[in-house]
Amino acid sequence: MDGQYLPMSEAKISVLDWGFLHSDATYDTVHVWDGRFFRLDMHLDRFLRGMERLRMKLPYSRVEIQAILTNCVALSGHKCAYVDMICTRGASPTFSRDPRQAENRFIAFAVPFGSVANKEQLERGLHINISDTVRIPPKSIDPSIKNCHWLDLVKGLFDAYDYGAETALVVDANDNIAEGPGFNVFTVKDGRLRTPVYSVLPGITRQTVFDLCSELGLSAAAGDVGRGELKAADEVFITSTAGGIMPVTKIDDAAVGDGKVGAVTCKLMDLYWKKHADPAWSIPVSYP
Amino acid sequence: MDGQYLPMSEAKISVLDWGFLHSDATYDTVHVWDGRFFRLDMHLDRFLRGMERLRMKLPYSRVEIQAILTNCVALSGHKCAYVDMICTRGASPTFSRDPRQAENRFIAFAVPFGSVANKEQLERGLHINISDTVRIPPKSIDPSIKNCHWLDLVKGLFDAYDYGAETALVVDANDNIAEGPGFNVFTVKDGRLRTPVYSVLPGITRQTVFDLCSELGLSAAAGDVGRGELKAADEVFITSTAGGIMPVTKIDDAAVGDGKVGAVTCKLMDLYWKKHADPAWSIPVSYP
Repeated sequence: MDGQYLPMSEAKISVLDWGFLHSDATYDTVHVWDGRFFRLDMHLDRFLRGMERLRMKLPYSRVEIQAILTNCVALSGHKCAYVDMICTRGASPTFSRDPRQAENRFIAFAVPFGSVANKEQLERGLHINISDTVRIPPKSIDPSIKNCHWLDLVKGLFDAYDYGAETALVVDANDNIAEGPGFNVFTVKDGRLRTPVYSVLPGITRQTVFDLCSELGLSAAAGDVGRGELKAADEVFITSTAGGIMPVTKIDDAAVGDGKVGAVTCKLMDLYWKKHADPAWSIPVSYP
Repeated sequence: MDGQYLPMSEAKISVLDWGFLHSDATYDTVHVWDGRFFRLDMHLDRFLRGMERLRMKLPYSRVEIQAILTNCVALSGHKCAYVDMICTRGASPTFSRDPRQAENRFIAFAVPFGSVANKEQLERGLHINISDTVRIPPKSIDPSIKNCHWLDLVKGLFDAYDYGAETALVVDANDNIAEGPGFNVFTVKDGRLRTPVYSVLPGITRQTVFDLCSELGLSAAAGDVGRGELKAADEVFITSTAGGIMPVTKIDDAAVGDGKVGAVTCKLMDLYWKKHADPAWSIPVSYP
């Protein structure tokens, strides 16, 4: 923060920052696995595109941001990390209500790698609940700008906990499936993959699934996915930088397929993790 | 913060707080005018209701929160202040992604009173632009929970600046007028007042206008307000704790009515500010 490297306990922002008071910020999260950044370029692309769309500017170049992220990981010592880069609108020294007068701020940090699904859930598959909460529509906020507007997703989570499930999917304005708190979702039916296209973040792990499918010769397409289609799928999995590809074996009160983690899901999970050592998909961090 | 009173420059929250990372927070802002809180009870009601709806809990009672707010103002010395109370989801010590495991946090602060409209704008009326951006709909986020999800409003502001206007109104999903960044809007036509009812925060100053109208024998109703109805009004004004009742005299490229601040608006502004000394509407702060 502000050109300094600090322990996480000291990483704090002003309560007057618009990034806090108005959630006026964009961010991205990349992960480091076994000492290597995974697809960092794609995360930087999305982060810089989001900043531009929100009309934010930083005094750092792309190369400098990459160096800061690398330093955060190296100094933290984490071999498997969850690495955040955040740009906030900042605050105006005069309490002005004009966002053009605020000084945009950059924050980056590395914490231990976290996953949506824990080890047990990765092995048996997650139990997910479809909430009636509607994801904030694109006419309100462009979902391709990765943002912190999560109250709808948090509502979905609480709905899911009330239901007795482990996590949630929320719907779009047409009652099709949208996404969950920090993840996209895929269905597999007769060997073909589908994922929602509207009112969702274009996730990097979601894109990675398309790339892996292409390598494996699997058909994968983005389009509307109804509640019925989701429940009738042979396999379902979610995707997130926080955990990669994670199986779902129960939706609401019914098993997905035969209730076991499916073959296509397993094949994709396997290839996904193999790619983490591939220099075409990852770059090493130099630790001190 | 955390039981301590600090100078504003030290009022900072952890970047790991869900209130920042996921805008998982509710807040309220009350103002102090001439050493007196204005309608504090109504702000506390809304704040506590929002917390309950977000399933947040604090170790402070309503009476204790009121005492903290009073101390913030007294210690700041501000006779006219903008006083924020914020409850955030907090962070989990284990980086858990389960919001139930986070420890909710309370922050309060007092800064000098700020207004949406400056002195000149209050005298001649604001120039407002109607943006095509759609306010986050109630199906996504309950607007009666005062929240920090403002990217749509910030987009509206930038649209308005591009247009050459001073501030913005955004629309609801049916293209009716919703609200602006931090304010509600009213029209006056043939002596009757109207304000949008859907996809808006039920503002305290908006409620105050209803109360003042009742006292003045004016008709005021909440209902859908179309773009055409707004532009055809005799008078238009906006309402916010940050500035009170503020006239609008130009919308897009056309004057409102005769382009001057209207008689009904003036009458309401006058009574609004008089109420600030009325013990039925305000309570004094004891400064040290």
